[in-house]
Amino acid sequence: MKAIVHVGLKPGVLDPQGKAVADTLGRMGYDEVKGARIGKVIELDLEGVEAGQEEARIKEMCEKLLANTVIESYRYELVE
Amino acid sequence: MKAIVHVGLKPGVLDPQGKAVADTLGRMGYDEVKGARIGKVIELDLEGVEAGQEEARIKEMCEKLLANTVIESYRYELVE
Repeated sequence: MKAIVHVGLKPGVLDPQGKAVADTLGRMGYDEVKGARIGKVIELDLEGVEAGQEEARIKEMCEKLLANTVIESYRYELVE
Repeated sequence: MKAIVHVGLKPGVLDPQGKAVADTLGRMGYDEVKGARIGKVIELDLEGVEAGQEEARIKEMCEKLLANTVIESYRYELVE
């Protein structure tokens, strides 16, 4: 089983890395780029999780380690 | 229009950041985590792209700036 966790900055939080990418693309001639936001995708390989506990465990991992919930939001999918 | 670009390390390329996350989760008691890979998602706001040129332009941006194609692969979706 895999968990795909998406972590991104909350709306309104400044994204300097995204701004750098958007500005650079603009300088390279891609004037159609008006902004960029950058997020992370964390793909976890899971084995032997107790049935029914997957969601609760993943949520805990997100809250404790994977996302900084002050400035980031997260969502996840379980696959397979 | 938005372009969602997913950039990740190619299979076989060592992912030290992913390894750090997996090891840390293991130490925190999440023994079910057997591995982790970390990728990026770049969300671009686009305006005024010539119709029919979107795909070609995005592909160019990926090849030139957004992905390091020696070690990373990418895919993208156009939305709206």
